[in-house]
Amino acid sequence: MAITITAFEASPDRGRGLARDMRVRWALEEAGQPYDVRLLSFEALKQPAHLALNPFGQIPTYEDGDLALFETGSILLEIARHHPGLLPADPAARARAITWMFAAVSTVEPPILELQTLMLLERNEPWFEQRLPAVKDRIRPRLDQLTAHFGDADWLDGDFSAADIMMVHVIRRLGGSGLLDDYPTIRAYLARGEARPAWQRAFAAQLAVFEASQRG
Amino acid sequence: MAITITAFEASPDRGRGLARDMRVRWALEEAGQPYDVRLLSFEALKQPAHLALNPFGQIPTYEDGDLALFETGSILLEIARHHPGLLPADPAARARAITWMFAAVSTVEPPILELQTLMLLERNEPWFEQRLPAVKDRIRPRLDQLTAHFGDADWLDGDFSAADIMMVHVIRRLGGSGLLDDYPTIRAYLARGEARPAWQRAFAAQLAVFEASQRG
Repeated sequence: MAITITAFEASPDRGRGLARDMRVRWALEEAGQPYDVRLLSFEALKQPAHLALNPFGQIPTYEDGDLALFETGSILLEIARHHPGLLPADPAARARAITWMFAAVSTVEPPILELQTLMLLERNEPWFEQRLPAVKDRIRPRLDQLTAHFGDADWLDGDFSAADIMMVHVIRRLGGSGLLDDYPTIRAYLARGEARPAWQRAFAAQLAVFEASQRG
Repeated sequence: MAITITAFEASPDRGRGLARDMRVRWALEEAGQPYDVRLLSFEALKQPAHLALNPFGQIPTYEDGDLALFETGSILLEIARHHPGLLPADPAARARAITWMFAAVSTVEPPILELQTLMLLERNEPWFEQRLPAVKDRIRPRLDQLTAHFGDADWLDGDFSAADIMMVHVIRRLGGSGLLDDYPTIRAYLARGEARPAWQRAFAAQLAVFEASQRG
């Protein structure tokens, strides 16, 4: 099985592991599955060759022979179909883990994306300073609810799973916001994720891509 | 199999089928699977009994014996596991349909949620009039890309699937925005979804709940 994913040739996050290819790299490292990476410029994302793989012109994509997928949640489910250890074998536990995969992108990420949009596109608008605390306040309930859910647990539902890959990555985007200062349980959760050897290999791989891009 | 879902006892959309229980009702109707509905007040959403089912205090949830799930994408995958017709049997086609389920909530819905948040929470802010066109303009690329993807196709990927349930529901939230005026391909897609007998049964069921709530 030869797997190819796509990633930014020069990630706008400057190698901090916030681009979504990190989720797929991490899952492939957890699975012990080697993979190739095709690096794309921003221009290449808009070209027909890439739009045929992902009509929304985003990274990452996933190719395995004739199968081409996009959306990290779907890609992780496909990797989990071929490798144990990413999702529970028990159908009920598996369904619960998939619930948390959707929760990461559908319930936790949208208010985080709204903050990201504000920081990127509205920083020079006259309302920026006034909107910033309101947008942050729309994220806090999610972090409160996650904290209550975790209690003393290490992972979202029993053992580590693809759901944790999704959730850790989604929440890491808050790193520079100061929001996590008030959430020690969530910080400890991120630290557990980042301590995994597979996370570290994935992080190093995407950082190496960014660093190579800067050497021109 | 006795299935119970949760829904608003008085939906804030006034029965227009925009609350997320509509996705699950539609899927259950497509599957021919009877279900019970437990109606919840806004106050009940915050109570421990409901938070045990969904830590984020949202509807819908899904209970089947000992199994409790939330997140509509996950619930639809579970329904599809028990019933043919919601996802293709072929593993590659199935993986592509799941890609589109994630695309609905992870790529198409977030900018729509941003518009919804603006309309709900920032309507009286001094920046409302100026932000409104900018927020709408962040949705247009998704509708352009979807239009290009559809071409002459009826559904997202081959036959109708759970992905279309997710996508039709996500995009229906734009109904009052005027945005769809420029997108005949998308409007025709929504109309195809709404023409399905299962959609109509699901819509009637949620509307009946809202109408009953108004009779006190």
